[in-house]
Amino acid sequence: MSNQPQVVTDQPQVVADQREAVTDPSGVIADQPETATDQFDLESVLEAAAAAAPAMARTSPMERANWLRTIADDLEADRDALVALAQQETHLPQGRLVSELGRTTFQLRLTAEVLEEGSWLEAVVDHADPAWPTGPRPDLRRMLRAIGPVLIVAASNFPFAFSVAGGDTATALGAGCPVILKAHPGHPELSRRTATIVQAALRRAGAPDGAFALIEGEAETQQALKDPRVRAGAFTGSVRGGRVLFDIAASRPDPIPFYGELGSINPAFVLPSAIQQRRSEVLKGFVDSFTLGVGQFCTKPGVLFVPKAEGLLDELGELVSAVDASPMLNDRIESGLQQRLAEMRQQWNPVSDAEADESGVPPSLFATSSSAAIEDMDALFEEAFGPAAVVVEYDDPKELVEIASRLPGQLTATVQSEDGDAAAPALLDALSDHAGRIVWNGWPTGVSVTWAMQHGGSWPSTTASVHTSVGPTALRRFLQPVSFQNLPAALLPDAVRDENPLGIWQRVDGELTRPEQSA
Amino acid sequence: MSNQPQVVTDQPQVVADQREAVTDPSGVIADQPETATDQFDLESVLEAAAAAAPAMARTSPMERANWLRTIADDLEADRDALVALAQQETHLPQGRLVSELGRTTFQLRLTAEVLEEGSWLEAVVDHADPAWPTGPRPDLRRMLRAIGPVLIVAASNFPFAFSVAGGDTATALGAGCPVILKAHPGHPELSRRTATIVQAALRRAGAPDGAFALIEGEAETQQALKDPRVRAGAFTGSVRGGRVLFDIAASRPDPIPFYGELGSINPAFVLPSAIQQRRSEVLKGFVDSFTLGVGQFCTKPGVLFVPKAEGLLDELGELVSAVDASPMLNDRIESGLQQRLAEMRQQWNPVSDAEADESGVPPSLFATSSSAAIEDMDALFEEAFGPAAVVVEYDDPKELVEIASRLPGQLTATVQSEDGDAAAPALLDALSDHAGRIVWNGWPTGVSVTWAMQHGGSWPSTTASVHTSVGPTALRRFLQPVSFQNLPAALLPDAVRDENPLGIWQRVDGELTRPEQSA
Repeated sequence: MSNQPQVVTDQPQVVADQREAVTDPSGVIADQPETATDQFDLESVLEAAAAAAPAMARTSPMERANWLRTIADDLEADRDALVALAQQETHLPQGRLVSELGRTTFQLRLTAEVLEEGSWLEAVVDHADPAWPTGPRPDLRRMLRAIGPVLIVAASNFPFAFSVAGGDTATALGAGCPVILKAHPGHPELSRRTATIVQAALRRAGAPDGAFALIEGEAETQQALKDPRVRAGAFTGSVRGGRVLFDIAASRPDPIPFYGELGSINPAFVLPSAIQQRRSEVLKGFVDSFTLGVGQFCTKPGVLFVPKAEGLLDELGELVSAVDASPMLNDRIESGLQQRLAEMRQQWNPVSDAEADESGVPPSLFATSSSAAIEDMDALFEEAFGPAAVVVEYDDPKELVEIASRLPGQLTATVQSEDGDAAAPALLDALSDHAGRIVWNGWPTGVSVTWAMQHGGSWPSTTASVHTSVGPTALRRFLQPVSFQNLPAALLPDAVRDENPLGIWQRVDGELTRPEQSA
Repeated sequence: MSNQPQVVTDQPQVVADQREAVTDPSGVIADQPETATDQFDLESVLEAAAAAAPAMARTSPMERANWLRTIADDLEADRDALVALAQQETHLPQGRLVSELGRTTFQLRLTAEVLEEGSWLEAVVDHADPAWPTGPRPDLRRMLRAIGPVLIVAASNFPFAFSVAGGDTATALGAGCPVILKAHPGHPELSRRTATIVQAALRRAGAPDGAFALIEGEAETQQALKDPRVRAGAFTGSVRGGRVLFDIAASRPDPIPFYGELGSINPAFVLPSAIQQRRSEVLKGFVDSFTLGVGQFCTKPGVLFVPKAEGLLDELGELVSAVDASPMLNDRIESGLQQRLAEMRQQWNPVSDAEADESGVPPSLFATSSSAAIEDMDALFEEAFGPAAVVVEYDDPKELVEIASRLPGQLTATVQSEDGDAAAPALLDALSDHAGRIVWNGWPTGVSVTWAMQHGGSWPSTTASVHTSVGPTALRRFLQPVSFQNLPAALLPDAVRDENPLGIWQRVDGELTRPEQSA
């Protein structure tokens, strides 16, 4: 961040005039209104990122692994101050924030490990083959390479793990891309403090200037996303805000990839066998999951399908009313929830629905029938961000397959069932077409950071259904493939050299080859 | 294809009214005007594809490998008739068409092999780990899965390899996706005959009904692309046509991935060392490459940068004027070229520029200086589809790095240089940011179908820069990841089972594992 006078923020009107259709003066990208600070000069940020990009693309994965570990170390060194600031700005409890910071440093270190392992480079070596069936094959070597400067728009609900030094930043820096990080206005001071740590760590670890910058303000975000120097965008937030940004990225003269992780309802389907065997456990599990963290998770289960059963709604009502009200992240999120609750009250029957008070927002649960739900799937699958959910009572599990086959894209879908339930296979099959993660006899809140995690899905859960925003494969979003044809050995990047100096996996003449064999 | 009365094609006006901004009545998607046939009913096609999708996603990779091999066998069995029809409709020479059909069946068979090898499934098994650093990790298993019905818009310039049974079809079917193939009006009878073979082969090999259908007409294409049942699109053609379709896909209420492989200029940079050592070979190679196939390749080198040298333009002029005129694919492509040539004549100096006559179109070459080229990069990097190119004379190879760093996205970029030329590394580095394939001392025409091929690049060479449309990795365009959390073993898909019944590569607890070890 420079202290130069603000050039860009003086002229937000110009940006708005240029592309009225996607300009969003009402502040839907963030969940609270914001005005830009004068702490940065957007043009300088963009220029520095563009200037850093070629040098960053040339750094070795091992160098970048060192950057990420240095950031992790420095965040940990400042843990107490960071957590205190986060508590103050987000109302989240200390324990949760400490563990979220732990998750954040883990993400950075796991990405570092993955960088060293090297299979993410997808290095392929095809030696020249004069007898190749479609005609003599030249020597061809393919690998992935940094896509260039990435604009990342931070989320409010994970002030560490999906914010300034979160997973998007870890994977974009890891891929070798300069990061322009748009701070969430829900935790501005925490964002600035984290950014200062990230920048200092990168400098100390030898990263080029321009590798990371913090920006603020919606007009600035949109302007950056339109700028030809920005080569990809990433976002975590609402469907409405994500759509505004996706449309900007797609309607550029030169469209760029835009990875938005948006809303999700995360429906949970309880089969009769589960209710028969584990009724209390299932109902308690659902209520715990949708009220966890005041319902402010993108994986919160917002709809529960249960077989119609005597007393079940009463039991759920008691569980819900026993959950204390808690403060939400900020006023804007709370008022968004109240607006959605007003619609929900019109559409469905209350099971438990108390008013918010000074201690915070209590959970709300509504009920409807499967026939009514099928009639208006759009309403059922509109997100309520916060501790609110709908129970849908069904008569026959066959209805669930019909509903599952019409689901809008979801980050997760949950099935509660006893082993051997005959209704499960068809339901799982239908859900696999519509959800990024299928949870069996568990609950979707809790996203493990590991190779097998998929955090994504079709629209509206994301804007890019073939990618994930959590786990090592998230690196791929910021990488572009390039092939080198007949390049002299001395000019080849290390990843695709015969002698394999990086000691990484390579596919050589069609065969995946272990690093031990080629090193 | 059904013989039902046409429902949809009676109402093109409705489609046009709904989304005027992206409707394209002037016929830019295809390169010749077209009217729909009444041989298919779009609604039935879409319904059949949607109905086939779940069953196709469940088929094993080995079953689908068998579909692709059956198609290849049946195309070969009909080779003489197919080639004769292609000759008649496209004016391409017999030898080229025979070899293109060979490439097409090779693509199908290579995709079949890749399906069996299985690493494309990206199967990941993470066993439950109570000691995982971010909290107990559940059992998680991730794999890729068919995205659903794909609309593929065929190209005119490869009536086999990028048309009905081309690479997009091979990879979409291979991924397990129903294909709705929009025929190119440049070879309608060939398209219909090929489609009949593909459908019969799929039926014989046991593929579900609805696995493949041919459609025709631009209004129908746009309507299909807007339909919620279509889950991805692929296209090979012009920047203008691709942009129309990309905008439709991106502006849907539920945006879907759209993989357009559009125009490319494929600049070639000749360093002084190459001219000094191999002047005649280099100039001849360039002329051969830009006139090959009457310049109707997406990898045609359209701009050549050469050091200013006495007599060089004259030598190029002689080489170009010695190339015979040849008929182009169709009248619409020829008139598009003539329109572009009129602009080129205004902007640059002719080196060799004869008029078309009844024997066809002769090649045209124009010249300009590097300073003029830098002034108007947009004009220099606008495609002329056909045998036309521009030579840019430069004074200092340093200018090339400046030009390379500002290149719009390219499918290829070529460097001609002697080993050890000091100007090469910086140039290669800058080009790697902007081109999908870097060719050294060769020419870009000729796209080998092999693991290491990258056929793609940033806008405008494609609409999806992190993907390729040629080579095994092209499968990934039609696959969506899904994770299964704590699913009982009996309900898991084969790809992610512990016993690995498919005998494929799996990443188990972080380690890539050879099939031999787990089978």
